[in-house]
Amino acid sequence: MTLPRTGAFVVPFRNGNGIVNSSNVKALDRWLAHLFLHALGDPEMDLLLWDGQKISARETGPRVGMVVHDRGALWRLLTNPLLHFGDDYSAGRIEIEGGLVPFMETVYRSLAHAPKFHRKSDPGAYRRNQPNLNSPAESRQNIHHHYDIGNDFYQLWLDREMLYTCAYFPDPDASLEAAQIAKMDLVCRKLRLQPGQTVVEAGCGWGALALYMARRYGVSVRAYNISHEQVVHARQRAKAEGLERQVEYIEDDYRAISGKYDAFAAVGMLEHVGPDHYRELGRVIDRSMTEQGIGLIHTIGQNCARPMSPWFLQRIFPGSYPPTIREMMELFEPWEFTVLDVENLRLHYAKTCEHWLGRFEQNLSLVQEMFDDTFVRAWRLYLSGCIANFSVGALQLFQVVFSRASNNMIPLTRDHLTAAAGER
Amino acid sequence: MTLPRTGAFVVPFRNGNGIVNSSNVKALDRWLAHLFLHALGDPEMDLLLWDGQKISARETGPRVGMVVHDRGALWRLLTNPLLHFGDDYSAGRIEIEGGLVPFMETVYRSLAHAPKFHRKSDPGAYRRNQPNLNSPAESRQNIHHHYDIGNDFYQLWLDREMLYTCAYFPDPDASLEAAQIAKMDLVCRKLRLQPGQTVVEAGCGWGALALYMARRYGVSVRAYNISHEQVVHARQRAKAEGLERQVEYIEDDYRAISGKYDAFAAVGMLEHVGPDHYRELGRVIDRSMTEQGIGLIHTIGQNCARPMSPWFLQRIFPGSYPPTIREMMELFEPWEFTVLDVENLRLHYAKTCEHWLGRFEQNLSLVQEMFDDTFVRAWRLYLSGCIANFSVGALQLFQVVFSRASNNMIPLTRDHLTAAAGER
Repeated sequence: MTLPRTGAFVVPFRNGNGIVNSSNVKALDRWLAHLFLHALGDPEMDLLLWDGQKISARETGPRVGMVVHDRGALWRLLTNPLLHFGDDYSAGRIEIEGGLVPFMETVYRSLAHAPKFHRKSDPGAYRRNQPNLNSPAESRQNIHHHYDIGNDFYQLWLDREMLYTCAYFPDPDASLEAAQIAKMDLVCRKLRLQPGQTVVEAGCGWGALALYMARRYGVSVRAYNISHEQVVHARQRAKAEGLERQVEYIEDDYRAISGKYDAFAAVGMLEHVGPDHYRELGRVIDRSMTEQGIGLIHTIGQNCARPMSPWFLQRIFPGSYPPTIREMMELFEPWEFTVLDVENLRLHYAKTCEHWLGRFEQNLSLVQEMFDDTFVRAWRLYLSGCIANFSVGALQLFQVVFSRASNNMIPLTRDHLTAAAGER
Repeated sequence: MTLPRTGAFVVPFRNGNGIVNSSNVKALDRWLAHLFLHALGDPEMDLLLWDGQKISARETGPRVGMVVHDRGALWRLLTNPLLHFGDDYSAGRIEIEGGLVPFMETVYRSLAHAPKFHRKSDPGAYRRNQPNLNSPAESRQNIHHHYDIGNDFYQLWLDREMLYTCAYFPDPDASLEAAQIAKMDLVCRKLRLQPGQTVVEAGCGWGALALYMARRYGVSVRAYNISHEQVVHARQRAKAEGLERQVEYIEDDYRAISGKYDAFAAVGMLEHVGPDHYRELGRVIDRSMTEQGIGLIHTIGQNCARPMSPWFLQRIFPGSYPPTIREMMELFEPWEFTVLDVENLRLHYAKTCEHWLGRFEQNLSLVQEMFDDTFVRAWRLYLSGCIANFSVGALQLFQVVFSRASNNMIPLTRDHLTAAAGER
């Protein structure tokens, strides 16, 4: 089953309605442009209007530019800036000068100090701008929207193993392929996997981590996923590798997990759960982890609770939300899990997304055969925005290791994390 | 200035009031004994009453025993069990068979599953049972109560460097001396100290860490402490080592910290701050850390918010509270600090306290020359209780490393943490 390869990013767009048009720039337009820049915290950027006029909040600093091609786009920016910036950029009515990533970094850095955004934690952040939350039915719809648009598309810009989560770069120049394998190995070490153990994975993507665990660490894995296309692909891989008896892929929700396991892993899955369901996920982990079990959650996170952009939620990842550490505690506290280790891999995710965007652009002609221009521009904006969010520190990547409170078989030191592969 | 060396543990004790006496055990006494065991979650222990009768909730399992010497002690256990157990044990009206640590472990394990305590997080936990909270004046009083009872006493059972915080055992058989040095080095590595940098330390004990940082890492340290005896001792040490220009000890509250520093360190200090003041401490860190600064907080913690025992708060550490990770976020979120690394050293603290109790018992005759028997028994109970709390997982030890959100000079990996000292 595949989605139609266009229309995923249909932009609700009203124009030429007699009120809004792109004739000469007027004083009101200039005033609105200043207002918009001010709402962004007066970033070091130029706003170039459709007749070539330049509006700037500050004259100093390195410049990026935003070209607004018509009055409608400018006016929309003031009603719902993040949604309409995304849509109008995707539709080509806004262009960026000086590079999309530097532009986004400039805006995010500025927003972080804008009075409206600065140092405010919003306890209802998760629910804002959401087209869908994450009941079992909504989760299926949300996951389908993003992950079921075609494996061949993702193959164009992910690594060979098709890992769609933050890689781990042992050194900054490691290849994406090496960094994704290093990430899988780091996860396995953090879980202290031993041959013969059992692992449950909640949200398994195209199945690479489960296969790696089975192949390299001799464990049996049961992996849950509600993306049909991913599960089909993962099962084919397991069969091709002769690992279908060691690795079982189940097309079902994390809430359906049954059985007892030595390890619980969720890599890039918590983002799709929603804080309203963390307690429920904690209950699932509590009932499925053995007394000496170890768990690992790898998730995008935030320093304080802020809503996602409505554009991102409506066009890219409906239902998604990167939690704060405080919000994540709702997973652990009610079940008295002990947090053993938290590692922040933010800079690794900026680097991972740079690789993805680079490959996306390298394979642009193939992407363009699959999707229309609106989709291509939206995806470019999404990947660039991810790089910028991680590079300016607006998003984090937390790897959290936990156990039951009474588990004294936990390692004394972190030596097992740095042992070379040959020493295991 | 020293406190009187007795009376610190004066036990409010009413007995022989005509109602309560220790004559023959009656049916009511037996019923109360059962009630007490049930409130503890029916642990695998025997309660031995003053005439030798044994009351047990369960007949199976390894046994520890609690001998209650008179009816008054039994009845008091039911009114405020933790306070009166501590006081009556200290006064010798309760004795323990099978070892104090195994006894406490049995009780704590049982309490963790008792209906009253099980899986309940109490948002007001910090304020319960507190004789004093932690305003600047109360903090001075609280700190004075514990730390100013005589440096010569602490010298009897701490390591040579006089570190009164969790050590780090690179291997389980390391000596306490080696483990405390390893802990200081781990802290310095986590802070990535470089020669010439400046460090501010909030709560510096007898000054060892500040001296180590200056001596081994070539940094300048300004260290704040409100324990007069500790500051006097620390200054003497700095002078004796010729480090008095590199290390400045200031007898003042963390709220008085001024200046800008490359690193902020608080080791075993947050326990005395109280969650009501975390935001305030965060503000102090925010104003005193440079843009590329790194901070480290090393603190006892909990998996979920539970009040401290009233005995511990009244007799040992008034004003103290070990936070949950959720509660600690109030330090970071309002100032948009990024959590980079959390390590849980719980098992290291159990081991550290075992060393302390062992040295305390080895030097018992010297301790007895300093303090009366009530103090000695209270201190034994305190150290044994610490071992038990850490060994059963009722308490945690969190080391948290953090930076500003925009700091991209953070290390990509943890390689700098494991580099041998010679490689620095």
